[in-house]
Parts: sequence; structure tokens; C-alpha cells
Amino acid sequence: MNMPLADDTAVERMRAQYLAVRSLSLDLVAPLSDADATAQSMPDASPAKWHLAHVTWFFETFILRDHVPGYQAHDERWAFLFNSYYEAEGARHARPARGLLTRPSLTEVIDYRRRVDEAMLEAMPLIAERCPDLLALGLNHEQQHQELLLTDLKHLFFQNPLSPAAWPVAPNGQDNHYGYDMSWHAGPAGLVEIGHAGDDFAFDCEQPAHRHFLTPYALADRPVTNGDYCDFIDDNGYATASLWLSDGWAWVQKEDVGSPLYWRRHHHHWEQFTLSGWRPIDPTAPVTHISLYEADAFATWADARLPTEQEWEAAARDHDPAGGVQLDQAGPVQPRFVPHADGLAALFGNVWEWTGSAYRPYPGFRTAPGAVGEYNGKFMSGQFVLKGGSCATPRGHMRAAYRNFFYPHQRWQFTGLRLAKDL
Amino acid sequence: MNMPLADDTAVERMRAQYLAVRSLSLDLVAPLSDADATAQSMPDASPAKWHLAHVTWFFETFILRDHVPGYQAHDERWAFLFNSYYEAEGARHARPARGLLTRPSLTEVIDYRRRVDEAMLEAMPLIAERCPDLLALGLNHEQQHQELLLTDLKHLFFQNPLSPAAWPVAPNGQDNHYGYDMSWHAGPAGLVEIGHAGDDFAFDCEQPAHRHFLTPYALADRPVTNGDYCDFIDDNGYATASLWLSDGWAWVQKEDVGSPLYWRRHHHHWEQFTLSGWRPIDPTAPVTHISLYEADAFATWADARLPTEQEWEAAARDHDPAGGVQLDQAGPVQPRFVPHADGLAALFGNVWEWTGSAYRPYPGFRTAPGAVGEYNGKFMSGQFVLKGGSCATPRGHMRAAYRNFFYPHQRWQFTGLRLAKDL
Amino acid sequence: MNMPLADDTAVERMRAQYLAVRSLSLDLVAPLSDADATAQSMPDASPAKWHLAHVTWFFETFILRDHVPGYQAHDERWAFLFNSYYEAEGARHARPARGLLTRPSLTEVIDYRRRVDEAMLEAMPLIAERCPDLLALGLNHEQQHQELLLTDLKHLFFQNPLSPAAWPVAPNGQDNHYGYDMSWHAGPAGLVEIGHAGDDFAFDCEQPAHRHFLTPYALADRPVTNGDYCDFIDDNGYATASLWLSDGWAWVQKEDVGSPLYWRRHHHHWEQFTLSGWRPIDPTAPVTHISLYEADAFATWADARLPTEQEWEAAARDHDPAGGVQLDQAGPVQPRFVPHADGLAALFGNVWEWTGSAYRPYPGFRTAPGAVGEYNGKFMSGQFVLKGGSCATPRGHMRAAYRNFFYPHQRWQFTGLRLAKDL
Amino acid sequence: MNMPLADDTAVERMRAQYLAVRSLSLDLVAPLSDADATAQSMPDASPAKWHLAHVTWFFETFILRDHVPGYQAHDERWAFLFNSYYEAEGARHARPARGLLTRPSLTEVIDYRRRVDEAMLEAMPLIAERCPDLLALGLNHEQQHQELLLTDLKHLFFQNPLSPAAWPVAPNGQDNHYGYDMSWHAGPAGLVEIGHAGDDFAFDCEQPAHRHFLTPYALADRPVTNGDYCDFIDDNGYATASLWLSDGWAWVQKEDVGSPLYWRRHHHHWEQFTLSGWRPIDPTAPVTHISLYEADAFATWADARLPTEQEWEAAARDHDPAGGVQLDQAGPVQPRFVPHADGLAALFGNVWEWTGSAYRPYPGFRTAPGAVGEYNGKFMSGQFVLKGGSCATPRGHMRAAYRNFFYPHQRWQFTGLRLAKDL
Repeated sequence: MNMPLADDTAVERMRAQYLAVRSLSLDLVAPLSDADATAQSMPDASPAKWHLAHVTWFFETFILRDHVPGYQAHDERWAFLFNSYYEAEGARHARPARGLLTRPSLTEVIDYRRRVDEAMLEAMPLIAERCPDLLALGLNHEQQHQELLLTDLKHLFFQNPLSPAAWPVAPNGQDNHYGYDMSWHAGPAGLVEIGHAGDDFAFDCEQPAHRHFLTPYALADRPVTNGDYCDFIDDNGYATASLWLSDGWAWVQKEDVGSPLYWRRHHHHWEQFTLSGWRPIDPTAPVTHISLYEADAFATWADARLPTEQEWEAAARDHDPAGGVQLDQAGPVQPRFVPHADGLAALFGNVWEWTGSAYRPYPGFRTAPGAVGEYNGKFMSGQFVLKGGSCATPRGHMRAAYRNFFYPHQRWQFTGLRLAKDL
Repeated sequence: MNMPLADDTAVERMRAQYLAVRSLSLDLVAPLSDADATAQSMPDASPAKWHLAHVTWFFETFILRDHVPGYQAHDERWAFLFNSYYEAEGARHARPARGLLTRPSLTEVIDYRRRVDEAMLEAMPLIAERCPDLLALGLNHEQQHQELLLTDLKHLFFQNPLSPAAWPVAPNGQDNHYGYDMSWHAGPAGLVEIGHAGDDFAFDCEQPAHRHFLTPYALADRPVTNGDYCDFIDDNGYATASLWLSDGWAWVQKEDVGSPLYWRRHHHHWEQFTLSGWRPIDPTAPVTHISLYEADAFATWADARLPTEQEWEAAARDHDPAGGVQLDQAGPVQPRFVPHADGLAALFGNVWEWTGSAYRPYPGFRTAPGAVGEYNGKFMSGQFVLKGGSCATPRGHMRAAYRNFFYPHQRWQFTGLRLAKDL
Repeated sequence: MNMPLADDTAVERMRAQYLAVRSLSLDLVAPLSDADATAQSMPDASPAKWHLAHVTWFFETFILRDHVPGYQAHDERWAFLFNSYYEAEGARHARPARGLLTRPSLTEVIDYRRRVDEAMLEAMPLIAERCPDLLALGLNHEQQHQELLLTDLKHLFFQNPLSPAAWPVAPNGQDNHYGYDMSWHAGPAGLVEIGHAGDDFAFDCEQPAHRHFLTPYALADRPVTNGDYCDFIDDNGYATASLWLSDGWAWVQKEDVGSPLYWRRHHHHWEQFTLSGWRPIDPTAPVTHISLYEADAFATWADARLPTEQEWEAAARDHDPAGGVQLDQAGPVQPRFVPHADGLAALFGNVWEWTGSAYRPYPGFRTAPGAVGEYNGKFMSGQFVLKGGSCATPRGHMRAAYRNFFYPHQRWQFTGLRLAKDL
Repeated sequence: MNMPLADDTAVERMRAQYLAVRSLSLDLVAPLSDADATAQSMPDASPAKWHLAHVTWFFETFILRDHVPGYQAHDERWAFLFNSYYEAEGARHARPARGLLTRPSLTEVIDYRRRVDEAMLEAMPLIAERCPDLLALGLNHEQQHQELLLTDLKHLFFQNPLSPAAWPVAPNGQDNHYGYDMSWHAGPAGLVEIGHAGDDFAFDCEQPAHRHFLTPYALADRPVTNGDYCDFIDDNGYATASLWLSDGWAWVQKEDVGSPLYWRRHHHHWEQFTLSGWRPIDPTAPVTHISLYEADAFATWADARLPTEQEWEAAARDHDPAGGVQLDQAGPVQPRFVPHADGLAALFGNVWEWTGSAYRPYPGFRTAPGAVGEYNGKFMSGQFVLKGGSCATPRGHMRAAYRNFFYPHQRWQFTGLRLAKDL
């Protein structure tokens, strides 16, 4: 999403990009009632309505308020409601209480979006001159929230015994492929380039580009599948302490975990909850909704390990990040069978792949000044890096250098894994 | 709400009573959006939509299913969603997760009500023959939930920084009376009759009628007002350990309590949140939204005590329970100034009055067989009795024998107090 | 423990009473190491060393400091450590952290006791003149802590997989009687006298004496036995929701309760932990270490109920409170078989009998001024009354009017029950 | 602590090493009472008695039981009590309940040590043949517990309002140096060797040795001092959200942190609790008892950052790990003034230096088979690496490759920091 020079064509292209991203958000909430868009199923998740408003507040605050003379805030009080975590922007509504904001309504939030969109489109020439980087940041930010909106909605609908579906199941929602054996492919070893370089948009945490030394290693040609994972379950993986990190073992016991999130036994078969309701497990699709702890325990059980983020990134350098199963439009969202390839398949899309790397700053990393400096840097403790995007990542949002991050127990995202080993 | 013999007139009267109660519930939710009706602000509270459905499930289950041949359940799965606490009716949705039921929608629940209403009205001759007591129970049950719906809604709107109002403030919402000094009136002492006798409807816990011996005592002529309570606050009542029950003192410190619920300081004055938004405190209105602990501490500070439930009931025997500020129709709900009377004023309506009596069974109390036996009896530990009804109690629902009950720390109901002392 | 006129003989008698109580406390800790006397197994319990010091601080503070001119505190800092809950005496060490006070040592605390004892004995003529009531209060207070010391020690030793024993099992520790069927005996009905009257010592909460009206009732001739209770367990008592108070059912499920405290299954038989280690259950001994919830559920299962405290007291008026299995000296402590009697047996001693009465003030109750006024009154919410004393109550401490009180979930005391029913 | 070939001299040297380590443990508990050695102040800490027994159980289990024919366990039940976290060795006593093990007594545990020591010394020729690596592991393990014993004891004594001291303050406990300005020294950049190589003892997590690429950087010549840290406090460091990691800011607010652990304000000056009681802060001594969050916030405030573990190790390669303030014998333990040096001072000893590196496996890391494989590997999530040892680390235990690790909020160890920056 490179932001071009601000001639007329460029401004038009920016408007088009802006509209494309913004309209997808609205498409995603089309199946939702006011109540669907308001409820919050856990503190980690946010209501759909809140996502819609928060990303709009982001444009309103960091672009319209800061860079467009004469802009009048839609409602001064809303900054308190829709600021997520920017300390520099002042106090904000408690995160776990977002689901109690029955007002403003979904309709009012959509009106808010329309009003901000009008101001953004009108101001686009100015934005192109003054702060094209903030526009790119805002659009990438909204894309991140599109993915969160989908995973949060899935978590909410999962709580409802009536098992609502956001979209009818896709015609090809249930593949009928045969799986294939995993094979190993050596990655580039020695000194490699890591991190984002060049003028295209990237988040601060992907920078600066730097060198990293890699010991010889190999990656599996495909992600771990549901079928692989069932073998782990059947082999008492969840009951074998020696496979687990100590924190993971404590988590398994405290939370009584015995399968990925959203799985249930039904008539001696596993089913999973999806945004199209309950579906049989497809053994050839990548396993998803697992924690770092589960990914690590599976890898130990398989006599392998998780890749480091540098190993993954070095291996992914030459792959097309816009390929794979990613989000193109509102509709069913689920990982699918990975066709066999000569080499590494499905690095991008389908499921986020847990790495064994803690999310920490790159050498020479500096946060931006001001509130946007809080975007990534302050989260660099306790979390692990995930790579490659998922079936819920908007296509075009991804690249090899991209660093997603979650706490090791979290699994409501489309998380999975690919095995690695030393050579 | 006495259920008469089942001749045609009687059946018509029952239909009219049924419709009157049922329509008030709908009137109460008229100002609510789907989201307003779905959210749950704390485990003690329930969504408005859930109240509407639960009371309907009560009629559907204990009358239509059990006594009307051929009745088909609206949706078998809803029993799981809308059973409150009846163990005998099987498993149910976790109470703290009621706010996650974004489906069925408010509209669907209202359809459910309509369908059940049609069946009830049609079956009324049969109901009049077979189970008029259950009809009376169901209607009184719905009236209880009307009050809860209002107090739960108030709690929800209070969480929203935008301070929504369900109804515009009443023209006389803010009284401008001068208060008056409290005076004492002796109650009937010696052996008194306690509990409900006669054929009119009463809950099981109000029965059987029995004798109780009372030592000479007096009650205050009016409830404690906001003005009285401000004196307690100004005299450091919340910081004086010796005034408090041990559990109350621990509660004050843990929860950092310094005023009734819904109060805030604003420009050196106290305001309170109401269903019409934030309003100045009226010093002449009864204080409300206080816990038993606060009521007890206030009484200790005032060198008085709480009345026992028997003292209160004996004194209230000859007062009209349909008098006072009670709920007549959907609209602003708030305690109001109590005019001076020759004797005890405002025993009924305005605020529930905490008594010093633990909620325990009367001598000879027996629960009914089956699920409805769970209505009251199983709650008889840890709670205190409140008497007299409040401004949110539907008029006609109250009587002197009525025993409401809450845990001593709870205060989101319209709770207040009246002082007592030994003579 | 009546305090006589202060002539020389009376003073000598007071000294003898003082020494008798004080020496029993030391006998009870004789089997304990410094570590045994220091550890605290839960916030509800206190270390033995703390009990020894706290009761001594009580005499030092309320008698020596307040009434004996020239007395110098042993160590000013210890008031902070050994004040239990007297807000009027200032800040104090956090209750749950009492087990971290490895200093002062047990030896130092025993020295402290000796020093205070010397001052008390020397000042006895003055005490007899000025504050004999405080002496009686202090001695009864120490007797209460003797019982707590034993139950707290039992709880501590129970946590240790090595199952330490404080005393070898008594020769007659395991009775071999046959049980006998329960029979019912009517208690005095109508207007009865309740509460303590006369000059003998009694706690404030037992006063004033007053009249109470009782509906006809009967009590069981003996407490419920382990054998009776096993029938309840075998009949799925712990898995039958309809038997339980709502709070009790929540407690059973949250704490996963399936038997009285200190019971375990061992080779298909029940065993119980005692201060003499693990012992087989004696089916003829009274069941003990049960909560109010369990007592109430058992009574419901047996188609009976708990007695009220007034029913119990009226029935116990003419029984000798110094009879029964009570604490005479340091040694094994355990309920034992109750021999058959013509009427009510074992009202006193063996096990505390839960009543269905909430612990609330008597009509006309007033707390004493000053810190000792905190002794009982402030605990009058949320707790239930128990009557009759236990095998761990020092003999001489008990009377029919005595009101013990605990929260309904607590069961580390020697708690049991006797059934009641309406006539 | 290299284990030599098993000739007679070598066996004697092993015996001498064994005795030296074992006797220091006993010296450390000499000032403790039975109660001091039994209490546990928090789940993270263990009782001194437990440390003494656990390290002995380690020798007994992994050497005597597994490798010395005919050895009889001292008490089979103790394995349950003194196993720390080895799942492969079976169930164990709950960690937070270690303080309730008043039996066995300190004396019994010391007897246990003596008995195991006799067996170990006798079996030393066999051990030298069969499992010298386990002996080295056991001794290094005991040294780690010596440090924990001291820090756990400090935490326990800190809870006691009487402020006990384990040892009188050292004559030179309070230095009176003037501080000096920090200076920067470039570390070795480019490809460096990381991790332990060679035959000397090292833990598995320090291996294998491997190459790592370092971008140019500099380290501060000395650790951050109390004086430096007071500047941070005075500049509102604890109240400035922008300085903190997000998790750290949440921790500061939840725990209400405003200074390092063990600090208090006293007459307008800071004091710190030590194993010699309360002492004034020495502004020239390294700051200690800070969390990773505090270390990171300080570094951000100072416009610097934490070093990575590789930067630290590369810079420390040529320094003597046996230098600096470390533990030589039982006695006062506290960080002290660092004299100025030409280059980096005090890399070893005084305080553990937090690095910015998450504790994760080295490339090629493999855990050992069996229970000892649980020693390190399973803890590799959520923790950060610390380097260099502290004043409580037994001298001889340390090396540049050593990787200590704690969770980012923990601070009861002697933790501090040294600044780093990019060049």
C-alpha cells in the first residue's frame, strides 16, 4: 500500500484505496444486528461496533484533528469511548466494559463513519501533501481491525447455544482432498537480511532492516493439519506433561484444555465452530485456534520445534505475500486444504504461524514520537511473533517482514503452526 | 390479585389482568434498542430482553406445557436460555453470560411473547379450572421482573459515559419541598400476627401466618432522606469503623465506598444517576441505593437501629399497600418527597426498607413440590428482608406480609431505610 | 465463672481460676514445635503462638494498661501484632499474614505470658475491686481461643502429608457401640424465656433476657451420627440439587465437596483426620466438621429441619451444661458415642449444633462502650448461631444461653447437627 | 567446577568440593529458628528448610537412588514433599503450601542432610566413575538454592513488623564513596561466539555454542546506582505512562508500585530492608530489587535501552567471573559501591543485570532425557534473561555464558541493570 506522490492521479488512487478498505469494514458487519455489533464476549475481544468506531476515531484524531484545519469533531465525548490504548490521548473507557456501550447505536456509528469519510475524501489532497504516512498507517490499522472484528465475532457467536452463523457455509467450505506427508526444505542459512527495507508501508516494529546469523535449518513444506493434530490428541498429547512448557502445562490444567478452541466432540467425531456455524473437522486443512503452548507441545511431540521468526522470514522472502487463502470480501472465513508444491506451500494466508521468537525490538528500533509511537513498541514483552497472515487477513495487507504478536495462551485468532528442525 | 371462580366473567377478568401485566412489560422496553435490551452490566443483573423472555418461559413451561394439552413449545432450545435457576427444569445458560445472547433478537422475543399470549388467552378457561394459582404466581412473577428490568436497565445505562436516559425527566421530577424532623411512633407490642392469611395471592415465604412476640418499640414516621444521609456522610460516616458491621466495614474498604450507589460529586454538589439521566440530589426525598451495611451504619450513627421484619409488618397492617409512589406506567422512576402524616408515612412505595431480619423460613414453612418449590425457599441463607415496595414496584403487587430479600452488599435496587428504636 | 466479692478468699479464688485457665493453654501447646506454633493454614485460622499471645495481650491491654497504675507494656510493638480485630485499638497486622511472624518465637511468647501472669496475679486485689467483669471476660475469651487453637492446629496438621498427631490416640478413642434409632421429643412451646439473666458471666450477645413465642416442635433425642450421614452420602445427597440451599449448592459445586471436612476414602471405607492422626469413622459418633449448608441439606433429606436457636435453648434450659464430652485437659479431642437417655441426650458437648437462626441482636441488645464493645455485636451479619459446645470446649465455659456463630460455609470447628420438626 | 578424572586425588577433590558446597548451606541457616526455616512468604519463595531438603533430595534421587546400588531412601514419603517441579518424578506437594510443612523439623532435615552426605562421600569413587556430571549438576543446583534461600529469607523477614536481622550489619556495610558519571564502552560487534563451549560444567541452556551477529553497540561502564534511580523517581518515572511497557504500566498501577522492592520513605529519606534490617540507601551502590519493567522504564527514561544477552555476553567474555561482590560465606549480603575502572566494571557480582532478551532456546538446543531434562528447557516462555550473578551468588558459580531467568514482574532477587545503546 505504497503512498504515491500527490498529483491528481495519486490523490484519486488514495481515495480509491481509502474507499476500498472502508467499504470492506461495512460489508463485514452487514449480517449483524445492533446487539450482535455491541456485545463483547471477553476482555481480549471488542464489539464489532467498537471496531468500526475506533478505526474511524483513528483517522479523525491523527489526521483530521491534527492536520486538517477547521475540522470539527463529530462528538467530543466519543474520544473517551473509542480510544483503544493511547495513553498520550488521555483517559479512556475501560476495555472490559466495551460491551456495555449500547449507545451510540450501530446506525449512529455508521453515520459517524460516513461523516468522517466525507471529510477524509475532501481533504485527500491535503493529506497527500502533509501526512500520507498516517493515511497508510490508518488503512493498515483498519485492515488489522477487520481481522479482529471477524475473530471477535466468531468468539461471540460461539458463546450462544443457538450457534448463529454470520454467513452460510461456502459451497467449497468442506474440501474433500486427501492429505499428504510432510516434507522438509532447507532454508537459507548464514547471514541473512531481516526486516523491512524500502519505501513501501511497513509498521515500525518491522524495522530497521538488519543482518542475522542463521544456523542450518529446515521448514516443513506445509502447515500442520487437523489430521496431524488429531494424532497428537489421540496419543494423549494433552495429558503428557513432558511435552509442554511449564507455563503451558499449568495453563492446560487450569483451563482444562483438551483440544483447539472451537472444537467439540459430536457422535465420536470432532466438529469445529465457524462463522458459518458448526462444521465437521476437515483433516486436510491446517489446524487453527491453538495457543503457542499447544503449538510448542505439538512440535515437541513431533520431535521437531517451532521456527524462529528469522528462519521463517528468510525462507519466505521470495514468496508472493498476496497469495494463499486470505480475505477478499465478506463471507465464510476458514482455513482450507493446502495443495502440494515443490518447496514451501502456504507460507502466506490460511493460518498465522506461531514462531518460537519472543516479540522484542529489532536492533536499532526506535518508536515514533507522540501517540502513534504507542502503536507497537510498548507491547514488546511477554508475547510471541506470528508470521504469514491468515484466511481472515485482508489480501494486500501482508508481507514477509510482517510481525504479528499475541500472548502464548491466546488462541481466538486463526493461529496454527509449521514445524522446523535443525540440520 | 385474587383469582376468582371460573365462570365467564371470571375468565374475562383473568384475561384482563393477564393483558394488563403483560402490556406493561412491553411498555417498559419501548425506549430500548435491540442492544440496550441485550446487554448485561453485572452478573446480578439481567438483560431486558432476557426478562421479557424468562417470564414468558415461566408461563409457557408451568402452565402451557404442564396443563394445556397439545401445546407445542415455541422453540425447545429456548428453555436452556431462559430458565433462571430452576434445577428441576434442567441445565441452563450461565447467568453471567446472559448478555452474550445477541440472538434471539428483541423482535423475536416480542414475537415469542405474542405467541404465548395467544395461547394463554385461548386456554384461559382451562387455566381457570386447572391452575389459577399458577396464573397468579406467573403474573406476580412478571411484576417482580418488571421492577428488576428497571433497576437492571438503570445499572446498565449508568455504565455508559454518555449517560443515556430511558425517559425524559418528569415535570415534577425535582421536588422543592422543605423536609421535616423525624418523629417516633410506637408500634403494636406483645403477641402479634405475622404472615399472610386468607385466600388472596401471596408467595409461599409469607406463610404460614403465625404469632410473634414483640418487645415495645417505635418506628420513625418517615424514611431516612437524602438530607439526613448527607449529614452522615459529612460526619465521616464512611470513615468511622465503629459504626459498621464487620462485614460492612470490610466491604466499604474493599470497594472504596463513600456514598450511595449512583451518586457523584459535581461542582461541590451531589448528583444521582436516574433513568432520566443525572439529576441533582433532592434532600427531602428518601435516600436510596444503599446496602444493608450502609443502612445499619446510618442507624448506629443515628443512635437507632433497623426494625425487625415483624415490627415493620405489625406496624403496617392497617396501611393501604396500594398507596405511595409505585409504578403505574412506563416513565420516570424515582423516590419522591414524603408528605407529613399523623403517624407513619410512606410505609409502602418509594423505597424498599431494609429490616434487621435475616430471610429465614417462618415456623411451619413448607416449599411446594416440583420446580416452583424453588421459587423462594432455597434462597433462605445470607440475605436480609426488605419491606414495603418501591417506586419501581407495580402498583397492586404489594402487601404488608410481602418479604423481599437481597444480600447485604447489594444496592442496585431502590433500597432505603426507616429507623426503629426500643421503648 | 462467677466473680465473687473482693474479700481475700475471693481474690484467692480469682487467682486460682486465672491460673487454671492460663495453664491449660500452655498444656495444649506442649506437643508443638516452634514451627508448629507459628504456621497458619488459612486466613480463618491463626497460629497457636498467636492465640497464646493474643489472649495475653487482651489481659495486658484491657486490664493491666487500663486499670493497673504503673504497668509497663512488655513490648509496645506487640500490640500491632496481637490485636485481633479491635478497630478502637488501632491498626494491626493483616490477619492472613499471621503465619509469617516467625519472631517473636514460641519461647518468647511463653515468657510474655509469664510476665503478664505475674502482673495479673499481683494486681488481683485491685482487679477484684475495679474490673472483675473484665477478668471474667478475659478468661472466657481465653477459653474460646483454646478451642480455636485446637481446631486451627487440626487444620494445619491436616495439610501435612505426613499426618502428624498432637497426641496419641486415646485408649477409648474408637468406641464399639451399636447405634440406636432417633426418637422425637417435644420442646416447650408458647411464650418462653430466652437469653441470659442473672449475675453470672455471659457475653453481651446473650442478653437481655426476653420472651419469645414458639410454635409446637420436637427435637431429635441425639445428634446426627456418622452412620446417619453416610446414608445421606450413599443416597447421593451431595449430587441432589433439590436438597440444598442455593448458596449451599453453589458452594458444593465450586469447592467440589463430597463429604465432611477431614474425611477420605481409604480401601472402600471412610477415614477421618483427627488430632491423633487418621482414624476409621465411628458410625455411632456424632458427625462433625460439616457446614450449615450440609446440615441443612441433611435435614431436608431427612424430611426434617434445623431447630431455631430459641427452640434449642428452651429445650436445653434444664440440662447440665457441664455434662457431656468437653475439654478437661490436653489430649485427644474427638466426638464420641452418645448413650441413650430418656429424653434429649448430649445437648452439651461433643459437637456444636447448627441452628437455623441467623446471628442477630436480641431485642434491646446494646454493645458495651469502647473496644470491648466490638467483641460480638459487629459480627451480626451473615452468620448462623450454634449451640451447646463441643468436645473441644473447655468444661465450665458453656451454658444454654451461649451463642456461638460462624459463616454457613465454615466447617473446621467441631460442628454437627440435631434434627427438629414441627408438631 | 570441572569434574576431573576419577583417580584417588580426583575423588578427594570431589569430596572436598562437595563438602564445601554442602557446609555453606548449613552456615546460611545457622541464624534461623525452626519457625524461620519453615515459613513461606509467597508462592514464588520457599522455606529455608525446604531448600535444604530439596537439594538433598536431588542428590538422593538422581545419584544415590539411580546410581548407587543398595541405597535405601531416608523416608519414601519425603520425595512427595521435596520434589520441586519434576513431573517425571511424580506428584508433589503443592508449591504454595510448602510453608505448612512444620514437620519434618529443621533438626530432622539437618539429620537427613547428614545421612545423605555420608552416603555420598562413601559412594564418591562410584560417582566419579558413573555420573560425575550429575554430581556437578547437583552442586551447581545447590548453589542456586543458596542464593534463593537468602532472597526468600529476606522476603520473609521483610513481612515481619519487628524487622528481624539474620546477621548484624557488616562493618563496611554502608559505604561512603562519591559516585561517578557513567561512561560508554563499545562492545564487540559483528559475528560473535555465544554460549558455553568446552568441558567445564555449564547448564544445558547455555549450549550449544553458536554464532550471533551483533550490530554496533555500547554498554555503560557500571550498573545503574540508587542515586541514578532516585533521579528517575524524582522525575515522576513511576507516573509517566510513556516510559513503560504496556504490561509494566498495568503492573505499576495494579500493584501500586512507586519504588524498588524493600524501599520505604522514612523522615524524607529512602531506606531499604536488608538481611541486616533497615538501612539507609547508599546512593553509590547499584540499585537492586527492580523488575524488568522498572529496568526497561528506567532505560527509556535515560534515553538508552537494555542490552541483549548476546551483547552482554560478548562484552563479558574476557572478564573474570569470580571477581566482584559475590557470596563467600554466611553473613551480610548487599550490593556495594563499584569502583571506577578503565572499561566495564562489575559485570560479575553485585546485582543480576536484566537483559532485553527473552529466555528462549539456543539454536540446536536439546534437553537431556529423563527428569533432569526438566531442569531448564520447560521454563523457556515468558521469562527474561539476567546475566552476571549477584552479591548472593556463591563465588565460583558464575561465568559469562550463564543464563539466569525470571518473569518480568519478579524482583525479590538481587536484580539491577546496566544501560546499553546503539552506536
